[in-house]
Amino acid sequence: MSENLPSYLTISSDLQADLSASIQAINPDKIAVLVDENTKRYCLPELNVTNYLILTIKSGETEKTLATCQSIWSQLTEAGFTRKSLLINLGGGVIGDMGGFIAATYKRGMAFINLPTTLLSQVDASIGGKLGVDFNGLKNHIGLFQEPNKVIIYPQFLKTLPSKELKSGFAEVIKHALIKDEAQWEFLSAQSFDSLRWDEIIPKSIAIKNGIVNQDPREHGLRKILNYGHTIGHAIETHLLKTSAPLLHGEAVALGMILENEVAQKLGVLSSETSEKIRDYLNHIYQFPDILPGYDVLAGYLKQDKKNDKKGIRFSLLKKAGMCTYDVLVEDTILREVLK
Amino acid sequence: MSENLPSYLTISSDLQADLSASIQAINPDKIAVLVDENTKRYCLPELNVTNYLILTIKSGETEKTLATCQSIWSQLTEAGFTRKSLLINLGGGVIGDMGGFIAATYKRGMAFINLPTTLLSQVDASIGGKLGVDFNGLKNHIGLFQEPNKVIIYPQFLKTLPSKELKSGFAEVIKHALIKDEAQWEFLSAQSFDSLRWDEIIPKSIAIKNGIVNQDPREHGLRKILNYGHTIGHAIETHLLKTSAPLLHGEAVALGMILENEVAQKLGVLSSETSEKIRDYLNHIYQFPDILPGYDVLAGYLKQDKKNDKKGIRFSLLKKAGMCTYDVLVEDTILREVLK
Repeated sequence: MSENLPSYLTISSDLQADLSASIQAINPDKIAVLVDENTKRYCLPELNVTNYLILTIKSGETEKTLATCQSIWSQLTEAGFTRKSLLINLGGGVIGDMGGFIAATYKRGMAFINLPTTLLSQVDASIGGKLGVDFNGLKNHIGLFQEPNKVIIYPQFLKTLPSKELKSGFAEVIKHALIKDEAQWEFLSAQSFDSLRWDEIIPKSIAIKNGIVNQDPREHGLRKILNYGHTIGHAIETHLLKTSAPLLHGEAVALGMILENEVAQKLGVLSSETSEKIRDYLNHIYQFPDILPGYDVLAGYLKQDKKNDKKGIRFSLLKKAGMCTYDVLVEDTILREVLK
Repeated sequence: MSENLPSYLTISSDLQADLSASIQAINPDKIAVLVDENTKRYCLPELNVTNYLILTIKSGETEKTLATCQSIWSQLTEAGFTRKSLLINLGGGVIGDMGGFIAATYKRGMAFINLPTTLLSQVDASIGGKLGVDFNGLKNHIGLFQEPNKVIIYPQFLKTLPSKELKSGFAEVIKHALIKDEAQWEFLSAQSFDSLRWDEIIPKSIAIKNGIVNQDPREHGLRKILNYGHTIGHAIETHLLKTSAPLLHGEAVALGMILENEVAQKLGVLSSETSEKIRDYLNHIYQFPDILPGYDVLAGYLKQDKKNDKKGIRFSLLKKAGMCTYDVLVEDTILREVLK
């Protein structure tokens, strides 16, 4: 399986040794570690940190802003960091995406290593070089594409993760199987969530995503299938982020997959049998809200989706388990029916 | 000469035709033009603009901030711009560098065309893909490397430029000659400023810079010679920006070349004869302030220079006309002597 992993990615059973080797290869003049209060407490002790600058931000998607970047850039500047310095991003998707953006633009680019600590960031954000921050409430609206100097996946970190977070990350694992690997979908859906072995599932899931990204790094075509579940999922996630009952990213994506399957069903792209099987499976794992925002609330967010063009809202829709289309234009009338 | 120009760069005598061809090649869904009050008045009428979104910012280096970027990103978002849209940056270095950064990070990257309108931006900012904004008073502190989709140089724009701005840009023309082309230096220094022919000088100057950038796009080595005059020049420029008597970029660079030549002279790298010839030539063209900030004021800025590493402040120093070194570590004692 390892031949299908990105060259910059290591799956590690000895974090200190692998991190130390990566730092030696970069040979930085200074090192900082970006953490939130959770990864500072649960993950930072796993690193052998001596005289690194520890940069702490509050956890959560609401912190993924230019204001946070400005605070970190200021701290790096005051501490005399140069473009030969290194930033280690220790955390989930927020830390990895934003920390990568901070490093890639500091003095036009310093080195960065991502140490993803959640299942979600290990199987998803760790591959593909998407960096950025939210802007005016729009997810990842400002950012760029750049691969980290190194990504080290340490599955041991998952032991500190709450079950709700683990399930959130699992939505991307399911997505990777559904869009590109029918056998993996059959394998996953035949087991109970609690019996899954992450050290086997993670490399497999990364390899699927990496295979897709390698064929289309800048998302001009095929890579868009990775957005399956994300067009409606992102809209729901973005809207609920402003309420007192936000969803985790993977929970929103799981919901997005169910609703986008209904769109695909209405267009005659996906069979009702597969759509229902996936819905039942996801309903079994996740606890979704009883009432969802409707079309009138979500339309504004859907229209800001990065895959759109002047003709309208473009979807990546499942044709069957293991096969996904992209760039499908969907009429507002169909969206109104599904997003009641 | 044209074989030494970057492939994305056109020197144009028919702006509308060349711009129209470039837009057709990109085929954007929407087009915006970024201007300041000067380029809106003097240069925008040269474009055949129909239904483009005109984004106007105030002119000047003080506007080159993340706050301005945020305002433009918001306007692009509200106008429904996608990552298939195009931003045309019509202006000098501030508009080109910042507009490029805005486009390169909007939804992780939309297309942009730079139409540099000053001599400075035509011979310098137009080549090499350095994008960014100032941050906390530090020049180009946040940014990235990315080439524009297209750069169109239209020397006719210079007719609208005040003489002071033309002289500012000319400092980079002199610099290019001094670091890499002795014959061009002899040619330039033998003429009076008013008799120079820009349509001949611009392609020659761009070709020198392009030859250097091509050998070292990310400034790991040779490209640093382009920073000749800029280490001290940037520090003076940044400091005076906060006063009531700021210098134009090229004026500060001209001053930086004189002072860095004194450093080179003290290190025995450059002959006093060449140093004095350059000083006299520059003094003849530029009007420098009588009193300059000294070492104690400039040291803080010098220490933030992007070329530095943990060992200290690194200079690109002239060895003779047409030849420049880089990565030269200079002791504080020598800087104190030169920056009295």
